[in-house]
Parts: sequence; structure tokens; C-alpha cells
Amino acid sequence: MQPAADNLMALSRLRVVLIETSHPGNIGAAARAMKVMGLSRLYLVRPQQFPCAEATARASGADDLLTRAVVCDSLDEALVDCSLVLGASARLRSLPWPLSDAHSAAQRAAAGAVAGQEVALVFGREHSGLSNEELQRCHYLLHIPANPDFSSLNLAAAVQVVSYELRMALLGEEPLAPDEGDYASADELESFYAHLEQTLIAVGFLDPENPRQVMRRLRRLYNRARTERVELNILRGILTETQKKVRR
Amino acid sequence: MQPAADNLMALSRLRVVLIETSHPGNIGAAARAMKVMGLSRLYLVRPQQFPCAEATARASGADDLLTRAVVCDSLDEALVDCSLVLGASARLRSLPWPLSDAHSAAQRAAAGAVAGQEVALVFGREHSGLSNEELQRCHYLLHIPANPDFSSLNLAAAVQVVSYELRMALLGEEPLAPDEGDYASADELESFYAHLEQTLIAVGFLDPENPRQVMRRLRRLYNRARTERVELNILRGILTETQKKVRR
Repeated sequence: MQPAADNLMALSRLRVVLIETSHPGNIGAAARAMKVMGLSRLYLVRPQQFPCAEATARASGADDLLTRAVVCDSLDEALVDCSLVLGASARLRSLPWPLSDAHSAAQRAAAGAVAGQEVALVFGREHSGLSNEELQRCHYLLHIPANPDFSSLNLAAAVQVVSYELRMALLGEEPLAPDEGDYASADELESFYAHLEQTLIAVGFLDPENPRQVMRRLRRLYNRARTERVELNILRGILTETQKKVRR
Repeated sequence: MQPAADNLMALSRLRVVLIETSHPGNIGAAARAMKVMGLSRLYLVRPQQFPCAEATARASGADDLLTRAVVCDSLDEALVDCSLVLGASARLRSLPWPLSDAHSAAQRAAAGAVAGQEVALVFGREHSGLSNEELQRCHYLLHIPANPDFSSLNLAAAVQVVSYELRMALLGEEPLAPDEGDYASADELESFYAHLEQTLIAVGFLDPENPRQVMRRLRRLYNRARTERVELNILRGILTETQKKVRR
């Protein structure tokens, strides 16, 4: 099996646990945030209202996650089988607990899931986060870096950032945009530069005695762009038509 | 001044542009997402409903960003002074445009802002994203990696992920590669494209009935190169001389 397939499977060992969520809209938006990043297992500890039409509306196509969500009476119940538990925390606590930023925490969670561990990401209440007792169930606290003057990250937005970092940690190595440009070769570029220089002299832009500085600038531009063959053909076409017009 | 303070200031050179947003709630949630990450400058191109109580409610304390939001009639207006424009795209396009993932794009945007450039992050409509014409205003497309079977990222969630990556790029651990080019701004590039199109029609290269395909190719080339101001002046000079010769 390819490493990428293993890592894709690891997504199914990651669960998101939401504790005592007040706004059902946030539950729906969190489900959507998860599904977009390939996560599927949602646990709800004592949600204030669930199921709820508003949650379904905000899930916007991720309602399968809501249907399969596990509603629990306690955090312990939601954490059964988990050997790695990360708790999201907006505040830096007086009682220090091992703290990672979202990026490093996601790396750790992903590594655990790839190794076959069940991993939970726990998010507290909208206004008060995790209680001290809940925080002590966590191996690590996860902190999303934020503006110290306005750190009020929406619950679903926090789930989005963490889910994104989890996907990146598991699948981020894949090369995104394969470099498949059909680039002009060095000799094709040289012919173009010669043609360009002649044309610029013909239209009276370039001083034939001293073409260097401008030509160097133009070379730098087209080289930096890594001009493609089809683009070079357009540019050559422009030069040819310009020369015809100027000769008349 | 400490590097971190410079980087903190760079946040003020980043603008988020939302095009024709349908749901005012998304505008509010986007403002909250921005402010939580320290961004403050919101531009709205033809929002369907704005100002709106729902936007203010979802902003949840970030309503100062809504009050100061700049409402524009066109994307060009929202991009004035910007020398780096990144467009968020859910789809991988048939005509490929330079594409980065959110992480690399944020590194690039942050490096530009630290170097004193005005940088725009452009987000399209909820259902249809950016039009081809809008996408051609962008130097790069930014893609948020997502589940290929469900890539329906909410607009505000996309703004959240990108704003988070921008904050991480500016204030996180990784050092930025310096970017010291003096790049042409979006409006300067637009004037150049208009001048180029006129000239290509004058020399008989371009069919005035159907300039689109060729102009799109040329836009892609000069955008990809991130044409510098001094280079643009040379190109404009060439066009001016060519027009004079052709008119005679």
C-alpha cells in the first residue's frame, strides 16, 4: 500500500469531540469544516440542541456526519479507545499543561493516527472552553495562534483550522501543481531575443548603438517568467506583424 | 525595530477582497475570521446586501472591520495600489494559472507585505468562485487543499484558513524569503494590457472581434512574471513607439 493511502486511512482514526455546544449552527458548520478536510467522526458531549434543523442547514451537505454523530453523556464516553487526546484551548492557563500550536499538534495527531492510534481533538464550550477537569483528560493542549487583542475564534472556525492542519499533516507532502509547462528552449529564446531586438530598432525604440541595457531588462523579464512555447509563438507573431507594418 | 514588530505592521498591508458575496452572514464571519488573525482591511465588491444586521451579528465583535469596509463597484477599484494579487480558487482550471497551496501562497503574500507591498487576497462568490476575467487579475491562484469528494469550503472558513496561514507566515517560526522587487500595481498592469491590446489591433496582429484568447495568454505571461515597474515602463515605451510608427 502506498504511504498516501495509509495516511488517507488515518483520517478515519481522528475524531472531533465538541463539548456542550450551545449553538446548533456551530455543530453543523463544524461538520462541514471536518468533511471538507476528509474527517468524518463527530462526537457530541451533551449538546444543548441536537438534532436541529439549523445544524443540518449549516452542515450544507455534510449532514451525513450529523446523522452518524455519537451523542455522549460524558467526555469519558467520547474518549473511549483513544490513546491520544488533544484539547483546543484559547487561553494560556495558569496551571501549565503541555501546549502545542495547531500546526505542531496536528503533526503529532497525524503521526499517532498513522501509527494506528485512535486520536481525539476536543473542543470546549463557545464561551468558556474546557473546564480544568476536562483539560486534565488531555495529553496536550492545542493553541491556535491569534490576535491577542481579539482572540474570539468561532468554534467552527477553530475546527476548520485544526482539520485543515490535520489534512496538511497527513497529505501535505503530495506535490500540488506538477510542473508540466511546455517551456521554450534556450535556443528558441535566443532567436526570440534577436527578433525582438531587430524589431525594437525598426520601430525606433532602441538605439542600435546601445541596445544592451534595455535588452538585458527584457531578457530578465521573459526568463524569469519561464516563457512557454505557445507564449513565445504569440510574441514572435506580434514581432512579425509589427515588422510588416513598419516596413510599408 | 524588532523583526516581529515589522511583521506585525505588515498585517496592515494585507487586504481581503470579497466579490459579490450573497450571504451577509458570510461577510460578518469573514470579518471575524480576519480580526482574530490580526487582519483589518476588508474590501467588498458589489455585495448583495451590505450593511446588514446579519453581517454585524456574525462579526461578533469584529464590526469595526465592517464599519471600515470599502465597498467597491469593481474588482479593479478594490485592487488599486496592489502589486501582488492572490485569488482563492476551489477548482483546478483547464487553462492553468500559477497555483500555490494556501501555505506557500501565504508565505509569498507575507514576504511581499513585509517588503512594503500592498497585497490582496481575493475570494469569489459562494457558488461560482472567481470568473475567468477576475482570475486574470491575479498573479497566483491559491488553492486550499480539500477532500476531493466534498470540497465545499464555506467562504468565511476559507478566509479563516488563509488568514491563519498569513498570521503563521508573519509571526510563526519559519523565516521568510525576502522579496524586494518593485512590482507594477494591478491598476498599472491593467493600463498596460489596454495599451497592448490597442497596439496589437493597430499592427494587425489581433482580430478586434476576438481578442480574448491571445490577451488571456499574454496576461498570464506578464502576471506570472510579476512584472516590475521599470520593466512595465520599457514595455509601455515600446508600445508608444510602435503606435507612432504605425500611424504614419
